[in-house]
Amino acid sequence: MGVMRLGFVEVRVTDLDAAVSHYEGSLGLEVTGRAEGKVFLKGWDEWDHHSVVLQPGGVGLVKMAFKVESDQDLEDFEKRIAAWGLKVSRVHRGEDFAVGEGISTELPSGHVVQLYREMETLGVGTGTENPDPWPDGQRGMAVPRLDHVLVTAEDPHLFSRFFTEVLDFHISERVVPQAGSDQILGAWLFRTNTPHDVAVIPGPNGKLHHFAFYLDNWYEVLRAGDIMAKTGIPVDVGPTRHGITRGQTIYFFDPSGNRNEVFSGGYITYPDFPCITWTADQLGKGIFYIQRELNDRFTTVLT
Amino acid sequence: MGVMRLGFVEVRVTDLDAAVSHYEGSLGLEVTGRAEGKVFLKGWDEWDHHSVVLQPGGVGLVKMAFKVESDQDLEDFEKRIAAWGLKVSRVHRGEDFAVGEGISTELPSGHVVQLYREMETLGVGTGTENPDPWPDGQRGMAVPRLDHVLVTAEDPHLFSRFFTEVLDFHISERVVPQAGSDQILGAWLFRTNTPHDVAVIPGPNGKLHHFAFYLDNWYEVLRAGDIMAKTGIPVDVGPTRHGITRGQTIYFFDPSGNRNEVFSGGYITYPDFPCITWTADQLGKGIFYIQRELNDRFTTVLT
Amino acid sequence: MGVMRLGFVEVRVTDLDAAVSHYEGSLGLEVTGRAEGKVFLKGWDEWDHHSVVLQPGGVGLVKMAFKVESDQDLEDFEKRIAAWGLKVSRVHRGEDFAVGEGISTELPSGHVVQLYREMETLGVGTGTENPDPWPDGQRGMAVPRLDHVLVTAEDPHLFSRFFTEVLDFHISERVVPQAGSDQILGAWLFRTNTPHDVAVIPGPNGKLHHFAFYLDNWYEVLRAGDIMAKTGIPVDVGPTRHGITRGQTIYFFDPSGNRNEVFSGGYITYPDFPCITWTADQLGKGIFYIQRELNDRFTTVLT
Amino acid sequence: MGVMRLGFVEVRVTDLDAAVSHYEGSLGLEVTGRAEGKVFLKGWDEWDHHSVVLQPGGVGLVKMAFKVESDQDLEDFEKRIAAWGLKVSRVHRGEDFAVGEGISTELPSGHVVQLYREMETLGVGTGTENPDPWPDGQRGMAVPRLDHVLVTAEDPHLFSRFFTEVLDFHISERVVPQAGSDQILGAWLFRTNTPHDVAVIPGPNGKLHHFAFYLDNWYEVLRAGDIMAKTGIPVDVGPTRHGITRGQTIYFFDPSGNRNEVFSGGYITYPDFPCITWTADQLGKGIFYIQRELNDRFTTVLT
Repeated sequence: MGVMRLGFVEVRVTDLDAAVSHYEGSLGLEVTGRAEGKVFLKGWDEWDHHSVVLQPGGVGLVKMAFKVESDQDLEDFEKRIAAWGLKVSRVHRGEDFAVGEGISTELPSGHVVQLYREMETLGVGTGTENPDPWPDGQRGMAVPRLDHVLVTAEDPHLFSRFFTEVLDFHISERVVPQAGSDQILGAWLFRTNTPHDVAVIPGPNGKLHHFAFYLDNWYEVLRAGDIMAKTGIPVDVGPTRHGITRGQTIYFFDPSGNRNEVFSGGYITYPDFPCITWTADQLGKGIFYIQRELNDRFTTVLT
Repeated sequence: MGVMRLGFVEVRVTDLDAAVSHYEGSLGLEVTGRAEGKVFLKGWDEWDHHSVVLQPGGVGLVKMAFKVESDQDLEDFEKRIAAWGLKVSRVHRGEDFAVGEGISTELPSGHVVQLYREMETLGVGTGTENPDPWPDGQRGMAVPRLDHVLVTAEDPHLFSRFFTEVLDFHISERVVPQAGSDQILGAWLFRTNTPHDVAVIPGPNGKLHHFAFYLDNWYEVLRAGDIMAKTGIPVDVGPTRHGITRGQTIYFFDPSGNRNEVFSGGYITYPDFPCITWTADQLGKGIFYIQRELNDRFTTVLT
Repeated sequence: MGVMRLGFVEVRVTDLDAAVSHYEGSLGLEVTGRAEGKVFLKGWDEWDHHSVVLQPGGVGLVKMAFKVESDQDLEDFEKRIAAWGLKVSRVHRGEDFAVGEGISTELPSGHVVQLYREMETLGVGTGTENPDPWPDGQRGMAVPRLDHVLVTAEDPHLFSRFFTEVLDFHISERVVPQAGSDQILGAWLFRTNTPHDVAVIPGPNGKLHHFAFYLDNWYEVLRAGDIMAKTGIPVDVGPTRHGITRGQTIYFFDPSGNRNEVFSGGYITYPDFPCITWTADQLGKGIFYIQRELNDRFTTVLT
Repeated sequence: MGVMRLGFVEVRVTDLDAAVSHYEGSLGLEVTGRAEGKVFLKGWDEWDHHSVVLQPGGVGLVKMAFKVESDQDLEDFEKRIAAWGLKVSRVHRGEDFAVGEGISTELPSGHVVQLYREMETLGVGTGTENPDPWPDGQRGMAVPRLDHVLVTAEDPHLFSRFFTEVLDFHISERVVPQAGSDQILGAWLFRTNTPHDVAVIPGPNGKLHHFAFYLDNWYEVLRAGDIMAKTGIPVDVGPTRHGITRGQTIYFFDPSGNRNEVFSGGYITYPDFPCITWTADQLGKGIFYIQRELNDRFTTVLT
């Protein structure tokens, strides 16, 4: 019961055609629908209708939407969000293309969080009867699924409190000013077994740092980097390893300047996972483990 | 709330010293305690006191133990097990070395399932402050953690019903006699995000097919195979890919003849994961995807 | 100066269309020509016109052809072959499609060896100006090139003597009956830096054991195995590691029953490479390092 | 006949103990001797006495030494070097620790090139009788062998001419000012089957850019990067892919500031390899394929 996963991100793009070419052609997502001027896409290993929504006009995150397990969850969270002091509204079936009944709230950080229980189902690329491990006809990086989203907030501590206190997330890793401090400068938050579904670092309210797609292994990360070079995608950082999550990564940009990530590896978490603490002086190693330093872009380029 | 994971397996071994040499020296687990004639071990990425218990005398599975999230879970499951018609007993703190209060039941298949909420904590090999991604001084295959257990039952359908109806597991994959049938000949069951925590195939009651340790990737599976050759460990099948779970695998045997597995990869699951169905005629491909046939050992060598 | 590499293998196939479908569609070679009833193919990273020639009618190896560096080499080898006691004949430009002047001989084992200096050039799939590391539009296993050929001979020692004494090959690894013996039961022979260009094991004269295509890494070997399962290619053994060469491998069969291999890894050799010796009792480990045993097919299925 | 390989590099280091700690402890070379104030090291898969010589005092390359196949080669190259207009001197057996008779010359670029035919042999870490694919007790990155050296020269064209005209090297890749030009700004030179044994880019005479050690695959490159982070080794660039050679790489620095590389992958070459040409405007992609840009350090930090 509760939140199952980051279901979809809705992002603004300055040029919809260029964005579709990027997400469909280079990342290899499938366009599953066009409606209300938006384009809906999913990875080959996702069964729901979409995990990415592209909306023309500007850049940045319109909303992050989490799928919950039951209608009861929606009712419970509606009350808990209100009890936590935030305005919460219903998103009725039909308001969001292919998405069922849900609720929506704006966090103190200005980010919009939507919860929903139901989405039209399309099925995975390999089918569910005697399936092969991967489908024929893959395109580009052939990312199987959305993995997580990282945003900035003026008060990351408060942001993480919403997810732990209201949505029952757990913190896998956190950044504190120095050893012994409990002041959260950054937090990586998970619901069940992944290193993170959502994360937050300090920065302006309402901004998107990146959203990430999963890849199976380090060789696929290399291949993704090759495809970025072949297709002229601007690379931010990587391939490299994160200290935080242990994952392997490349950060890169979509044609509108929104940061994407391909991400592989990482440990498994559970509710009793012993929270990892990074002191701010070691954050370079935490973010880019091999290089041990942040570039300027990492903290300044946001959408 | 509910079951978090397969916490530990307790297995019988004919020669305790040889078994310790195998699990500690070749698999790379750490011996964390010896008590009541038993040896307790954990992987370097596990924080609880143990995930494997070796008990001298014979072969096979003494019990599989699942860790739950809260004391309330224990009370709830105690009632639900009884309501499902099974005898359930308390395992009091102190009865099991390093394990807190729990409950125990014997399934119709003769397998003993224990649930517990608390275990003494030792911490992971990399620590929780500014950690490296892996610890120095790794031994052998350096398996980070226990992954799952597979058993046989005369009535696999009933076995899987216990886990779905009582313990709130979900079925990721199942084997049916032919397309359209709902009779479960085999089931792979998960609680949260992994392909399986426990699985069942047809066979004698009470028997163990194998228990598996996770490895990060296909190169580590190769390296594990190299170590099996170097140290004379009998290999059953692999390296290869499973159709079921998509994981990469080697099956091999401990010195007593209990089957082990190293397992990497596999997809992510959620409660709304669309259950995959294998028809019995394709089971060879389901188990060993590349070879597409079972060897005799797979179905006959059990402990 | 001297032999540069195994240039091409010419093999008989019972069904030419099925063979083309296999080598072009599943292995991913490119059909570069059809002439004299034969089909010519090359890998994407080969610049010469072909590395595989398919000839309808039967199974097995018609000839193995090595490319030499200079016309002088042809003249020298012509004399050295004759001096070694074998008949040698000229293969004139135009006799072999797309191949220049050459010489041919039949070894005591009945295998035909051709040497040539020139072949029509088509260029590699990535081009030679500011190239990408791999071409777009890859098919199937996308093997970049032919790697080596393994044959059987009643007198493997004599076979290897031809290659070392006449063609200036070196032995990377050899099998002897027992420690201390110099009787060669099997030999892996190289000219410059690879583990082997040609190899021989005991068996009937004139037979082909397999010819192999290179893959970049162990993940590509897994992917090749997946494609074998998807397209119904019969797998002989693997994925696994060879003790001999250290390479990673899958043996499989073309539709006519000729054995193919995909091969990755392996060490680098030089003329001063210290020859490795396997005693016959360890040959199982030498061939299939992880399993440490040969299956019957390995020594009995030949074409 | 001719040059077989880059046999060893002799480099100056400011702190010999720190250097030994780096090359032995972190890269995993074996110290095979100490003499004349120098330290000699080899990789586990090298059979000759050493491939790296550390000499206290300063930084940079003392000499690069190539092993030839025969004494006749030494005599021939002695004449050819002189005929090309360079002074050539004998290095008598015993002058260089563990090295046999040789010749030495100083190139117009100021680099010292030594050729030798013989070196004391120690054997590889896995032995030559029924060997395992890798030895037990590996340390750090466990690099198996030296791979290549890259230097700078004011006249790279002349540098490459020495290697092709006198030592019979071939050019795998070259950089030219623009398409159609034959002026070599940079050259990657090989003798037999590797992408390069030695390479040159524009820069001051006599300087070392880096020398490189081979790793088996992209996962080992990641692991090497992890070890750099664990042991505090300064990383220059990587992990990433080279466009030139297609290899995978990390550049990093030894404690004296000499640049090292770990390198895996890359294509196979032959004397008829079709030379690849990079135009200067694409050199960023040629060097760091994924990022497509050089950092300042790459061209300015030399020793």
